[in-house]
Amino acid sequence: MVGLENDKVILRALRGEALEVPPLWLMRQAGRYLPEYRALRAKAKSFLELCLTPDIAEEITLQPVRRFGFDAAILFADILLVPYALGQKLWFQEGEGPRLEPLTVDAISGLTRAEVPERLAPVFETIRRLRKSLAGETTLIGFAGAPWTVATYMIAGAGSDDSAAARLFALKEPKAFARLIDVLVDATVDYLVAQVSAGAEVLQLFESWAATIPAESVAVYSIDPLTRIVEGVRAKASVPIIVFPRGAGSNYLRYDAIGADALSLDTHVLLDSVVGALKTTCLQGNLDPFRLIAGGKALEDSVRHIRRAMSGRPFIFNLGHGIRQETPVEHVQQLVRLVREKAA
Amino acid sequence: MVGLENDKVILRALRGEALEVPPLWLMRQAGRYLPEYRALRAKAKSFLELCLTPDIAEEITLQPVRRFGFDAAILFADILLVPYALGQKLWFQEGEGPRLEPLTVDAISGLTRAEVPERLAPVFETIRRLRKSLAGETTLIGFAGAPWTVATYMIAGAGSDDSAAARLFALKEPKAFARLIDVLVDATVDYLVAQVSAGAEVLQLFESWAATIPAESVAVYSIDPLTRIVEGVRAKASVPIIVFPRGAGSNYLRYDAIGADALSLDTHVLLDSVVGALKTTCLQGNLDPFRLIAGGKALEDSVRHIRRAMSGRPFIFNLGHGIRQETPVEHVQQLVRLVREKAA
Repeated sequence: MVGLENDKVILRALRGEALEVPPLWLMRQAGRYLPEYRALRAKAKSFLELCLTPDIAEEITLQPVRRFGFDAAILFADILLVPYALGQKLWFQEGEGPRLEPLTVDAISGLTRAEVPERLAPVFETIRRLRKSLAGETTLIGFAGAPWTVATYMIAGAGSDDSAAARLFALKEPKAFARLIDVLVDATVDYLVAQVSAGAEVLQLFESWAATIPAESVAVYSIDPLTRIVEGVRAKASVPIIVFPRGAGSNYLRYDAIGADALSLDTHVLLDSVVGALKTTCLQGNLDPFRLIAGGKALEDSVRHIRRAMSGRPFIFNLGHGIRQETPVEHVQQLVRLVREKAA
Repeated sequence: MVGLENDKVILRALRGEALEVPPLWLMRQAGRYLPEYRALRAKAKSFLELCLTPDIAEEITLQPVRRFGFDAAILFADILLVPYALGQKLWFQEGEGPRLEPLTVDAISGLTRAEVPERLAPVFETIRRLRKSLAGETTLIGFAGAPWTVATYMIAGAGSDDSAAARLFALKEPKAFARLIDVLVDATVDYLVAQVSAGAEVLQLFESWAATIPAESVAVYSIDPLTRIVEGVRAKASVPIIVFPRGAGSNYLRYDAIGADALSLDTHVLLDSVVGALKTTCLQGNLDPFRLIAGGKALEDSVRHIRRAMSGRPFIFNLGHGIRQETPVEHVQQLVRLVREKAA
């Protein structure tokens, strides 16, 4: 159970402490911008093998922590491991991203979460190893995709920028869609509780496609399922939870209702306008990943601005979206220096 | 000059009148969901030929008005005609969308608006013909892309969902980027004033990629250039202007500052939350294009909800995004019936 090492800076921020130097980690920090990741990736048969081989997943998770001394390690895994564990066929097309056998209405009634613990056993093993190998200061973050986001891939059979297939499916087959969301809520609670049991100290829920939800469906597709997950996990595990509704736009404030410990902010949220408006204890994120690619003054200005805007408030420094593969490693080093300067 | 036929319903809404039955048109109403459009498209050599041949562009513009009796016809053209008129090479790759020769820093200083009137002369001819052929009741809408949106295509050489190339360019080459925006502001004012002179009665500015602008750059990349265009056009022409910052999210309220006559709302804006907050005279849009594909009760519920939420307020009924090609024509007929019912 979390609570033994709760002097870790991220846990302090999540409990509501405003730190002079904010804790720092980066979404997708273990990834293709790192040469050591690309070397490992080149040797593996598939992306799925990376996620489901504890030796490799552990090493990938540790790579950015070793190089940059981030305050957190985030488990190397994929949000589509849940559909995989539910029995949907999943593979990764080289250079094209994930592919799944698109769900039919009938297939949805056949989904069962009975095999989640067994099929995802390697993930829990990775977490157990990581918890031992991580130095006392570094927090281990587990994660899962939010039901809407995961459903968009399950229905389309691939990623899509407008979630067209899922949006139409939800309107045409509302009962089957509701059943899918229910299965995902339950499976995700199981999965996250098992992550905490294995050693995850913080959880993050990624609603990566919040931007594609029509305003009138945000409550039903996203806020309600996320609330049920947060409540379901808390009924069985004591763990701080971060929610990241990327692209929620004018609906961001509605995510306060979930009662998460932190909300992660994308790059399109004007900090000065939400700092006072959001009620969630801790905030996270907001740095434009393109400023990390540009480096120099473009990066410096923005880091200082964010630190000033968030000073005196519980905050975890992070990007507003995952780090992009074209990011120079030296700019990440520059970022670490800027965030850790005493005076913002 | 506008003003002679100002009993047209769209003009009344734009002047601030709340109509019991809101005026109706659809973004991208002249397009691939119509069999008569596909027939014309199949005969033409290229998409550019459709835009720049007055006979064809006029016919395409009129097709949806004939079929559905919409309250407005929107000129059939493309937002990339401005880069084309500025001298950038433009072509349309069959099935893949627009392609341009990507802009370099040097090429930006070579852009000039001198040839805009001549290169776009066929567009103005189309407008003159349309103004004659449209029945007295139907308003003719002209349009242009907003500078940020147009710049994303000019810099990347193609459409992109994250505007990655433009975002990085703007950070790395701020002076060249500012010069590009300036050229686009001036050329767009020229282009729109010429549209009004030819007979356009309303103008719409499409900031179709507002969603990709980082919050701290919304003012500089989008609101300031749009404000300059609105002021520039108004200095020379008396015409109502609609601004559509698609995906502006939590930054939507900031677009009030432009002083447009109407703001068009995407599908992600919760109507009830903005109706009171936005100060712009007239609102437009919001219907989810996927509900138009689904039809039936999904469509009916949403049309009634929008009409109720906007009743008593100047409003133009429209989609929150362009109509999709897979939309059944019968559902558009259903929409027209629902919007024109007396009791909402």
